[in-house]
Amino acid sequence: MAKATYQKPKGTADLLPGESSKWHFVEETARLLFNDYQYHEIRTPIFENFEVFSRTSGDTSDVVTKEMYDFFDKGERRMALRPEGTAGVVRAFVENKLFGPEFQKPYKAFYIGPMFRYERPQAGRMRQFHQIGVEAFGSESPALDAEMIAMVVDLFQTLGLTQLKVAVNSLGDIESRHNYREALIAYLTPFFDELSKDSQVRLEKNPLRVLDSKDQADQAIVANAPSILDYLSDDAKVRFEQLQRYLDALGVEYEVDATVVRGLDYYNHTIFEVMTQSKALGTGWTTIAGGGRYSGLVSELGGPELPGIGFGIGLERLMLLLADEQANLPGIAPLDVYVAHQGEGTEVTALQMVQAVRAFGYSADCDFSDRKLKGQFKTADREQARYIIVIGEQELLAQSANLKNMTTGHEITVKLAELYTNLPAYIDESIEQNEGENNA
Amino acid sequence: MAKATYQKPKGTADLLPGESSKWHFVEETARLLFNDYQYHEIRTPIFENFEVFSRTSGDTSDVVTKEMYDFFDKGERRMALRPEGTAGVVRAFVENKLFGPEFQKPYKAFYIGPMFRYERPQAGRMRQFHQIGVEAFGSESPALDAEMIAMVVDLFQTLGLTQLKVAVNSLGDIESRHNYREALIAYLTPFFDELSKDSQVRLEKNPLRVLDSKDQADQAIVANAPSILDYLSDDAKVRFEQLQRYLDALGVEYEVDATVVRGLDYYNHTIFEVMTQSKALGTGWTTIAGGGRYSGLVSELGGPELPGIGFGIGLERLMLLLADEQANLPGIAPLDVYVAHQGEGTEVTALQMVQAVRAFGYSADCDFSDRKLKGQFKTADREQARYIIVIGEQELLAQSANLKNMTTGHEITVKLAELYTNLPAYIDESIEQNEGENNA
Repeated sequence: MAKATYQKPKGTADLLPGESSKWHFVEETARLLFNDYQYHEIRTPIFENFEVFSRTSGDTSDVVTKEMYDFFDKGERRMALRPEGTAGVVRAFVENKLFGPEFQKPYKAFYIGPMFRYERPQAGRMRQFHQIGVEAFGSESPALDAEMIAMVVDLFQTLGLTQLKVAVNSLGDIESRHNYREALIAYLTPFFDELSKDSQVRLEKNPLRVLDSKDQADQAIVANAPSILDYLSDDAKVRFEQLQRYLDALGVEYEVDATVVRGLDYYNHTIFEVMTQSKALGTGWTTIAGGGRYSGLVSELGGPELPGIGFGIGLERLMLLLADEQANLPGIAPLDVYVAHQGEGTEVTALQMVQAVRAFGYSADCDFSDRKLKGQFKTADREQARYIIVIGEQELLAQSANLKNMTTGHEITVKLAELYTNLPAYIDESIEQNEGENNA
Repeated sequence: MAKATYQKPKGTADLLPGESSKWHFVEETARLLFNDYQYHEIRTPIFENFEVFSRTSGDTSDVVTKEMYDFFDKGERRMALRPEGTAGVVRAFVENKLFGPEFQKPYKAFYIGPMFRYERPQAGRMRQFHQIGVEAFGSESPALDAEMIAMVVDLFQTLGLTQLKVAVNSLGDIESRHNYREALIAYLTPFFDELSKDSQVRLEKNPLRVLDSKDQADQAIVANAPSILDYLSDDAKVRFEQLQRYLDALGVEYEVDATVVRGLDYYNHTIFEVMTQSKALGTGWTTIAGGGRYSGLVSELGGPELPGIGFGIGLERLMLLLADEQANLPGIAPLDVYVAHQGEGTEVTALQMVQAVRAFGYSADCDFSDRKLKGQFKTADREQARYIIVIGEQELLAQSANLKNMTTGHEITVKLAELYTNLPAYIDESIEQNEGENNA
């Protein structure tokens, strides 16, 4: 009787060997690089109380209104699979009192992991997706902003990306945003009837969001809207100039782009996006990292009034991009040594040999299916084995084995005992000189 | 107005910097070691359709009856946060047709990640916990079982654990289990009224589970129960002897323990546990890894009839154990270079310097809070900086900096341009000889 087949949930993916190694390489590259900048890893739970996300996303955010992957647990508590990384990190920062004087400020942390949203299926986007992000709390300095922007560019360049564009903008302080908000409402209101329904709602609740609209008619109206940069307070203006001076000093190429306004209510001062042109991600410039400075988030979750700054990178898009750019990401590593065996009693010796090879730190494999040598060689070939050790009945009788360098084709016969104790001498460049010694 | 504070969900934890680095070290150690055995990473979704777990856990499993973290999503689908790793891997193995001839058999995969259960709160166990596990599909060979047991021991030893006990047992084939089941029912039935309620239910549904009971009265009854080893078929007996011969050949110390029966309906033949004695985990021997051979799981999820074998390790317990054993796990790495600065115009140069240091692959940090040198040195000390570079107004004027080796106390003055281009020459053992050169 055939059993039912089961599928992964809609909007999720399996990451299989060969692909997972590429993801792991990117994640490790980020870890090492973040460590050089003194950002350290923080891991928060996969789910949080719903309010942690609803309070930090802003009332008009799509995340809260439409896309949150929330549910009621068996205790009738409203929980949500985390839609992004910042809220959980802020919650952990407050709950663990990391704002205390015993911790270095800015407190720099990074996270890597799965995020979730319950999208309408037609959107074709993932319900479980993955992000790398960083947060730094407790410093107002624009030097920190510049360092963070330099870091994300450093990461992308380290991964081999070249066609990068960095857009920076300033949303200024509360005074700047208040003045700009007034000006924007004054500009947009005459166009009210022409705006999309979403933008009509946004105009009431948070007019800056209209600038973010993907609607073409909206974008045409927005094109002539006043610029936030003309409404920055003197302090905010000085701060934005300082940021640019730091970026210049660090050799970061960037553009000031007043149309970049990111979707979170809490952003202020520096916001930035890193963009790239790649057919893999669509036409024109598309954003592969975005972030900014925020205030009010830490206090919103019960902590002191401390500023923060952070960015997030979507891993799915980054992996698509790297594949398209033919970045040099490792698949499954070639096998170091395949131990082929055939004949009575050779299985035990083969198993001892693979284990001995691994004890020297090499990868090793052998057959577990009683296949003929031909089949085993095929496997060795498929696993790109650099060396093959062959143990047959004759070899077993002589307590020796045949060792073949698959790159050079060199073959030698070596005592088993010698391989067990001295294998590394036969691996890599050393094989030829050792061959001489052992034949002597 | 004070805002509400928010807490992590009950039964979850935050892993903060300093602790996360230890987890990451253990995970990376496992990855590297598994790779030597040709096990490669597979990543499956955090949640699956409920049936994927209910079909693979067995009807009488506590996981299904009490502990599954399941919920209804917004589309009224019954989903569950994965309670363990095997089911998702089997689902992915089938759905991605990894049983096909183009894939090497056994197909070896490992996973690392969060798992979930909705426990009764009083149990004090985690709702989000973490496991490392492996699965191998498509080989019947006891050599594979032995290799897997050797691998888990290898992992624990590599991590520095010494007091290990490996218990192996065989549940035999279907015939063996049928005969044993009969004998066990015959033995237990006279004690029915004395058994715990849970065991009374188990006796009806799956009598082998009674052997697993934690109830003391049950355990006293079970102590004299017949042994599965006396009911193995001849084939199963031969297979179990082969396993032991392989383990002997690999130098794995083990005990045959007929009381080890693990909780999954699908187990057959080899089952094993690795145990340790540590006050951190309670009194006596406690299990830190468990696994076994199974059949029927792949076909239960719609695939061909292929055998599998796997094990799982609970990371929370392993980390407790390693802390208790004072294993040498890395906390936050000491900082390579701290760049202290004070005075007009030095911030920009300090920022350029940290960035230059990082470009050479060292970790670097500087102040972002306009603190005096004294405060900066305190930070450098807290971050265990190996070198401090000091840039004051005088140094800036002379376009030089003061470089101090915090281990030896040696101090030298070096041109900024020289540090930008040639920093590694001043780091590590080389500092003294370079000092001579530069003073000349």
